[in-house]
Amino acid sequence: MTIPAPIEDFLGCRTPETWVRMAKQRLPELLLDHANCEKKAASTALSLMFRYPQHDKLATRLSKLAREELRHFEQVSRLIRARGIRHARAPVSGYAAGLREACRNNEPGRLVDTLITGALIEARSCERFALLAPQLPADVAALYRGLLASEQRHFEVYLSLAREFDARIDNRVAELVAVEAKLASGPDTVFAFHSGPPA
Amino acid sequence: MTIPAPIEDFLGCRTPETWVRMAKQRLPELLLDHANCEKKAASTALSLMFRYPQHDKLATRLSKLAREELRHFEQVSRLIRARGIRHARAPVSGYAAGLREACRNNEPGRLVDTLITGALIEARSCERFALLAPQLPADVAALYRGLLASEQRHFEVYLSLAREFDARIDNRVAELVAVEAKLASGPDTVFAFHSGPPA
Repeated sequence: MTIPAPIEDFLGCRTPETWVRMAKQRLPELLLDHANCEKKAASTALSLMFRYPQHDKLATRLSKLAREELRHFEQVSRLIRARGIRHARAPVSGYAAGLREACRNNEPGRLVDTLITGALIEARSCERFALLAPQLPADVAALYRGLLASEQRHFEVYLSLAREFDARIDNRVAELVAVEAKLASGPDTVFAFHSGPPA
Repeated sequence: MTIPAPIEDFLGCRTPETWVRMAKQRLPELLLDHANCEKKAASTALSLMFRYPQHDKLATRLSKLAREELRHFEQVSRLIRARGIRHARAPVSGYAAGLREACRNNEPGRLVDTLITGALIEARSCERFALLAPQLPADVAALYRGLLASEQRHFEVYLSLAREFDARIDNRVAELVAVEAKLASGPDTVFAFHSGPPA
């Protein structure tokens, strides 16, 4: 399964092979963390809708996006149930916190950076689904192939919203792409859907 | 348009006529607050999913419920746009805060009370949609007729979840029904979708 070209072009690095091997070995943890990521993605979209209620287009697009994330949450949860995987606390990798830290605190930079990091997270998810699908059991692979197209769409939604609030974001995108690439490929102490490879 | 019997039986009082008259006069504010309520309803469901991640059935049902709330948010937002209503800060009535205050702080009481108040809010919304539909312009009335059935379903989802965590909730339900009835029918300083009638 190939990584969609716009995603491969956007990301600063390919996910290391060692992460993919680890994911294959730790499928229950991967799925539990994946379910949690879908819930967090819906929550992030919703909190943007609350933070910027005056932006009608942002609210409408992110509302649809949040609905899709919740549907994915339900799909992954169904798979988790079908496989008899028991609930466990989701691990906390430094990925999301690292991206949050890199975001500016003052508006409009805060909004633009949050949208760019949204695009980055969706792009990374899309890339990892493509890398994982050929390696994982048929039921998971089928789900991941289905999710891939949505993640690519979500990536585009976030990036086009970022451009609406600031037409000249290329330099800032490049900076955040570099931050994300480091987080996704540097050695990590925990294993999670967006973590780096094992330290 | 009649109020569904299970809703009328559940609620502790009928919404006063003075509130309905006020809503008719202040349609733009009603719609803006309604959109905000749908967003808050999705957010409440999502925060319960985060607070109780181990409850699989709760997560699955509330995820679907949150998706429906977001779809309603999009529908009301479309109507707001079509009517050329400009964004304004949503008013804060004492309704939600009053219900929150009445909830117990310790588990499992906290979960059960949150679910019962969820049922109450959905029931009150359902009742008000039924009361408002015959009074409002055709486009709003059509939407409200459509939403009524979902709100009744959401009321049932919350109440049946509450019963799953505590089979003997009748006394507690009666207490919270009384609190809600007072909030929805007592004089209020602001006008909102769930406020009491004008003071």
